Amino acid sequence: MSGTEAAGPLSKDVLLVFLPGAEDTEWTGRIAKRHPGLEIIWFNAFKPGNEFTRPEEFDQEMWHRVTILATYLPPPAHLVPKVRYIQLISAGADKWPSHPKYQDERVLFCTANGAHAPQIAEWVIGTWLSHGHKFQRYASLMETGKWEQSFDVRVQDSPGLRMGILGYGAIGRQCARLGSAMGLEVYAYTRNERTTPESKKDDSYCVPGTGDQDGLLPAKWFHGPTKESVNDFLAQDLDLLVISLPLTPETQQIISEEQFEILSKKKTFVSNIGRGGHINQEALIKALETGQIRGAALDVTDPEPLPSDHPLWKAPNLLITPHISWKSLSFFSRLLAIIEANLENLATDKPLINVINRKLHY
Amino acid sequence: MSGTEAAGPLSKDVLLVFLPGAEDTEWTGRIAKRHPGLEIIWFNAFKPGNEFTRPEEFDQEMWHRVTILATYLPPPAHLVPKVRYIQLISAGADKWPSHPKYQDERVLFCTANGAHAPQIAEWVIGTWLSHGHKFQRYASLMETGKWEQSFDVRVQDSPGLRMGILGYGAIGRQCARLGSAMGLEVYAYTRNERTTPESKKDDSYCVPGTGDQDGLLPAKWFHGPTKESVNDFLAQDLDLLVISLPLTPETQQIISEEQFEILSKKKTFVSNIGRGGHINQEALIKALETGQIRGAALDVTDPEPLPSDHPLWKAPNLLITPHISWKSLSFFSRLLAIIEANLENLATDKPLINVINRKLHY
Ligand SMILES: NC(=O)c1ccc[n+]([C@@H]2O[C@H](COP(=O)([O-])OP(=O)(O)OC[C@H]3O[C@@H](n4cnc5c(N)ncnc54)[C@H](OP(=O)(O)O)[C@@H]3O)[C@@H](O)[C@H]2O)c1
Ligand SMILES: NC(=O)c1ccc[n+]([C@@H]2O[C@H](COP(=O)([O-])OP(=O)(O)OC[C@H]3O[C@@H](n4cnc5c(N)ncnc54)[C@H](OP(=O)(O)O)[C@@H]3O)[C@@H](O)[C@H]2O)c1
Repeated sequence: MSGTEAAGPLSKDVLLVFLPGAEDTEWTGRIAKRHPGLEIIWFNAFKPGNEFTRPEEFDQEMWHRVTILATYLPPPAHLVPKVRYIQLISAGADKWPSHPKYQDERVLFCTANGAHAPQIAEWVIGTWLSHGHKFQRYASLMETGKWEQSFDVRVQDSPGLRMGILGYGAIGRQCARLGSAMGLEVYAYTRNERTTPESKKDDSYCVPGTGDQDGLLPAKWFHGPTKESVNDFLAQDLDLLVISLPLTPETQQIISEEQFEILSKKKTFVSNIGRGGHINQEALIKALETGQIRGAALDVTDPEPLPSDHPLWKAPNLLITPHISWKSLSFFSRLLAIIEANLENLATDKPLINVINRKLHY
Repeated sequence: MSGTEAAGPLSKDVLLVFLPGAEDTEWTGRIAKRHPGLEIIWFNAFKPGNEFTRPEEFDQEMWHRVTILATYLPPPAHLVPKVRYIQLISAGADKWPSHPKYQDERVLFCTANGAHAPQIAEWVIGTWLSHGHKFQRYASLMETGKWEQSFDVRVQDSPGLRMGILGYGAIGRQCARLGSAMGLEVYAYTRNERTTPESKKDDSYCVPGTGDQDGLLPAKWFHGPTKESVNDFLAQDLDLLVISLPLTPETQQIISEEQFEILSKKKTFVSNIGRGGHINQEALIKALETGQIRGAALDVTDPEPLPSDHPLWKAPNLLITPHISWKSLSFFSRLLAIIEANLENLATDKPLINVINRKLHY
């Protein structure tokens, strides 16, 4: 219900989609029809050879007119004087804190929360299963055609085991959904306390049929920004620890020597898809080498790319992937669903979804 | 409610647990208490060096007294004249059809259906994710410390994809549960038609909190013992085909050249945890080599062990494991739960669970 055909409530807006991907003409057609007068510019920021077009390379006059922007790379502030809503392609705002537009509270910033959840949860569960069921070992045996059916191979399946999810947001909730289906008991951790049914809800974008938007899956829920409360969570006999946190000053090195000590009781498998900075990597290498933990899977490291001579590559019982767990052929269509929902919200004066917290940067 | 402390209804019975595993004294203690007078003999049939004790090696006098038997290897019929209930450790009865006791309808035969379901479903989903998310590739890149974040790597996550389950029994149902949680649409196939809610139920043993005992997960259900009806199922645009059938004359080579042709439309990923005989392996190799299908995972081959020079080892996009998907540290406790339930049923004159169909051998 947003005005006449001739000029909708977004008729003074200019939307620039500056993302690495070709125009989805079905989507732009639908948006144009729904928001008469909205100017839509789609620029495929992906260059052959794995590179991005830098904002400075794109037409300045166009930039100046943009009021709504979906982008991966931050453009210099002077290029976007009129921007009022910036849609990020990431779940955190690591690249933005010092940006003048980010510091300007009038500019709405939204994350892509929820667009990564299904594929990252698959990565988490897939690497957990791959480790537990020893697929890597069997893949190696294939090279020499070796059929080795040893009774010594001990596999522990998931029913009755416990999964702790440090950061129970969009990604953590879909991990919980898959884990629960396998029979894992879910313990959740959030920064803020969640006691009432209302507070347990998550209002991020959620792919229909996935996740745990109402927060019903955890058998127990822990919270708090302090090290003590995190340590208490880690002491809950976790078989699998999923780190699905944003990187903030509070979550830097949240897992270090002391925490591996705590995890050693259950030899917890550690899965990190947040950021490399959450883990003290020297402590991780030691924990793997000494068998304090049964194994680990990392999609993120510090630094990235991880130098080829870094000792982490050689640590035992570890799978490293190069920050690719978010990848999915469906990612862009989910991001476009978020933008579509937010254009609707803008047009109807409703609050946007996935709005970032400017103090916490997630 | 089974009689007095002094002599319960099983007081004339002798239970022999002839399995590869040490006595679970908590279990035997509980059973002894529940069934006063029942004689319980537990023999660990596992010998060091990956071997089984053969039935002939075990005390003959003992064998002769046995009325209830849990075993992996079939003992010669003359050793067990009095046996009335035989509990198998497998889901099918491949080793038994020609056995006189099997042919004697008065002897109850029960499968271990349901005791394998959680771990095999994890194997199915784990190999599917491992292939789709290319863990193997990243594990190889680790060897040289290569951080390769190529945009060409195309990952398709599961929401919206379709999974066909050929054989919707204990294992198939837990595969459905995991697949559904990931957002896969489930199509089920059984031999017999299932139209009513009652007929959709499965009465096999089921680990609490797992599976789909009421048959509520499939979006569509197909059935029939004919090739035509199977082909019709395979033509349903399946992204993932799970073969969780028993091996019977009807299901021999159920997937051959013609079927791969049908599957080529969607390049269906084929996962076989039934028996090697379901698939024509020459046709599979061709389907993999020519890209008719996107990949495959096999826990079973024909023959087993697969000879080291067999061409299947070298087929692309394939993971082979040596018939280990059933392995789990929890397997024995689940098998014991089945025996416990059936001792209760025997004692109270109720029908047993997991009774085998003597005509179909599953
Ligand atoms: N590997 C990749 O490719 C990839 C892709 C996407 C995202 N990520 C990472 O994953 C993170 C999570 O993504 P998401 O979409 O699930 O985010 P989200 O929905 O914002 O959830 C974040 C969760 O972390 C909790 N949290 C924040 N600070 C905390 C603290 N100090 N201690 C304990 N818990 C804390 C939050 O609790 P409250 O709700 O109480 O604040 C919330 O439950 C992102 O921030 C990003 O760093 C990685
Ligand atoms: N790889 C391993 O380690 C391993 C371990 C355990 C089992 N297995 C194999 O997996 C099989 C299934 O195990 P389960 O416990 O799930 O068995 P189950 O509960 O007996 O289920 C078997 C299913 O297959 C269907 N079926 C039988 N014959 C068929 C036919 N001709 N055409 C189509 N569908 C047919 C049955 O349909 P109806 O219900 O209508 O008869 C039923 O849905 C076992 O028989 C065994 O061969 C392998």
